[in-house]
Amino acid sequence: MSKKILILAGDGIGPEIVAEAIKVLEAVRARFGLDLTLEEALVGGAAYDACGHPLPEETLAAARTADAVLLGAVGGAKWEPLPIAVRPEKGLLGLRAGLGLFANLRPAILYRQLADASSLKAELVAGLDILIVRELTGGIYFGEPRGVTRQESGERRGVNTLVYTESEIRRICRVAFDVARQRGKRVCSVDKANVLECTELWREVAADVARDYPDVVLSHMYVDNAAMQLVRAPKQFDVMVTTNMFGDILSDAAAMLTGSIGMLPSASLNADGQGMYEPIHGSAPDIAGKGIANPLATILSVAMMLRYSLHEPEVAQQIEAAVSRVLDQGLRTGDIMSAGMRQVGTAEMGDAVVAAL
Amino acid sequence: MSKKILILAGDGIGPEIVAEAIKVLEAVRARFGLDLTLEEALVGGAAYDACGHPLPEETLAAARTADAVLLGAVGGAKWEPLPIAVRPEKGLLGLRAGLGLFANLRPAILYRQLADASSLKAELVAGLDILIVRELTGGIYFGEPRGVTRQESGERRGVNTLVYTESEIRRICRVAFDVARQRGKRVCSVDKANVLECTELWREVAADVARDYPDVVLSHMYVDNAAMQLVRAPKQFDVMVTTNMFGDILSDAAAMLTGSIGMLPSASLNADGQGMYEPIHGSAPDIAGKGIANPLATILSVAMMLRYSLHEPEVAQQIEAAVSRVLDQGLRTGDIMSAGMRQVGTAEMGDAVVAAL
Ligand SMILES: CC(C)[C@H](C(=O)O)[C@@H](O)C(=O)O
Ligand SMILES: CC(C)[C@H](C(=O)O)[C@@H](O)C(=O)O
Repeated sequence: MSKKILILAGDGIGPEIVAEAIKVLEAVRARFGLDLTLEEALVGGAAYDACGHPLPEETLAAARTADAVLLGAVGGAKWEPLPIAVRPEKGLLGLRAGLGLFANLRPAILYRQLADASSLKAELVAGLDILIVRELTGGIYFGEPRGVTRQESGERRGVNTLVYTESEIRRICRVAFDVARQRGKRVCSVDKANVLECTELWREVAADVARDYPDVVLSHMYVDNAAMQLVRAPKQFDVMVTTNMFGDILSDAAAMLTGSIGMLPSASLNADGQGMYEPIHGSAPDIAGKGIANPLATILSVAMMLRYSLHEPEVAQQIEAAVSRVLDQGLRTGDIMSAGMRQVGTAEMGDAVVAAL
Repeated sequence: MSKKILILAGDGIGPEIVAEAIKVLEAVRARFGLDLTLEEALVGGAAYDACGHPLPEETLAAARTADAVLLGAVGGAKWEPLPIAVRPEKGLLGLRAGLGLFANLRPAILYRQLADASSLKAELVAGLDILIVRELTGGIYFGEPRGVTRQESGERRGVNTLVYTESEIRRICRVAFDVARQRGKRVCSVDKANVLECTELWREVAADVARDYPDVVLSHMYVDNAAMQLVRAPKQFDVMVTTNMFGDILSDAAAMLTGSIGMLPSASLNADGQGMYEPIHGSAPDIAGKGIANPLATILSVAMMLRYSLHEPEVAQQIEAAVSRVLDQGLRTGDIMSAGMRQVGTAEMGDAVVAAL
């Protein structure tokens, strides 16, 4: 049966980078005889502009029946004056919640060909390969009560609520341990268990899950220390697992450590293996429409999609190998450009990956 | 009238580093004829071990009547099995709340003499001088409701609450703008206003405060981006102001960028100019009792105390100059040791600062 892929280009550079990813997807479809149907829909600011809401019902419905979703990026200063309920970001959060995508996998990898791109001294990051597993449908992002109310004194008061149940913690920790088994067999659970009771529960449940994985080593770290250790000695980590909010912060820091955030894909999975795939970087409105954005993170997101939701690991590997060859050829978009390399635009990079397949 | 300074050595390396700071304080007292009375009390794990609570009533009472508090560090794995309510950290949080120390000033400075200590490439951090202003008595650290409850299903659920009122946001932003006026005249307010309504209020109030400071430039940044930017290009920042939780994470990352976290002091101030002063680093139980900890962050905390709470800016400067001279002489504790320098222990470093005064 044909697998349905929903394409959500989104805002800013989203449409440009997604266009290159589609090129690659169509090339592998033809090359490997995959039975894929692509469908497109609106999300984010683009959806808000078209119909007043960042996640139209048709989009969520189409996502629900898709085998996988490919997302570009959402948001931009243009929509920042809007209330949170109709911001572009709400479209993304609505998809995560609506599809139950509780497990966000965010690799932070230093590409061999881009060894100099990091802000960190070379010896600290050579060969860096961390995977951050971020809880994505709970925590303070979704907890109730929330909002701003006016008190009797006339003063306003803003509230958000960090909430986790044992089962929410348990399932995300299981994902982390399962994936650690395929890698370095170490999980670092990040919390603030010395201050926040909710994350004291997190620590306890993580330790409990670890009992089912005697072959994987669990450590615990406070989030402030984790942020420090990522800067000091990032190679100490294999898999990190943490809450939605801490994961948001730490995964961006970790990705930036590699200096190649324009290269990093991500996967957001639910319990059925359905997934949404997107680059880790944002919508970069400042360079939108210029044809200079790096499409490789989105192309590598297609590879993750083939691996995790479409059960085509070999095709995934072919795409990853093609990206590696293009880097070996010296092709670079502006964000990863360095001396002696050949600078190319978004479309030229996409074409080069297709040619290298 | 004599100024009273309450000394809280705390846990781990706390007593060792505080002992050196006291040497320096007594030296400047004699040298400059300051009328200071030193008093000591228990806090943290040391207090818990002595009397079952990390913040005995006598300690809080003594702190309330002191002009300033000098704190070493609290906590350690030894007390980690305890419930949050009686952990060493609770002693620190109780002092912050009990004294109303809402404004935490955390510098991230790269010392000229330690230019190579950073994890970052030299050109990215040369001359780095950021000040993080962290809200310290509100937010998710103190918000109610909090705790772990059992639901009808039998499953446990952990909750913490992020809360800020307009006036809490306003007063910490004022501190940030006031201090920015004395420095680079730029404030970056860090929030997650695209997701958390509480921090949408934060952003609005920060913008409102900025109207009273036409000479200071305000920018806003999402916390995930701020974590990335600290790694990518930290010198873009002058003063950053943020919530208790975000400040905990970002200030540790920023301090670690300098590679000299053993050198960085901090001040926590209330509305009356009363303050608590402590090194940014923790209690480092692994090296406690070995006489090798770096006392300079604590000695520099004494300098901050003289400047902010004791109104002796010239004495503060003398201490800072003495520390600088000791570094110029090539003296280094193990944490900041590099080739060609002379490695010394905690006490020798303290003595050297006294000698350099
Ligand atoms: C756009 C925003 C809502 C989102 C988040 O905070 O989760 C983004 O920062 C991310 O990490 O995917
Ligand atoms: C020890 C802990 C409670 C404390 C905090 O989280 O505030 C520490 O990390 C700090 O930053 O001073």
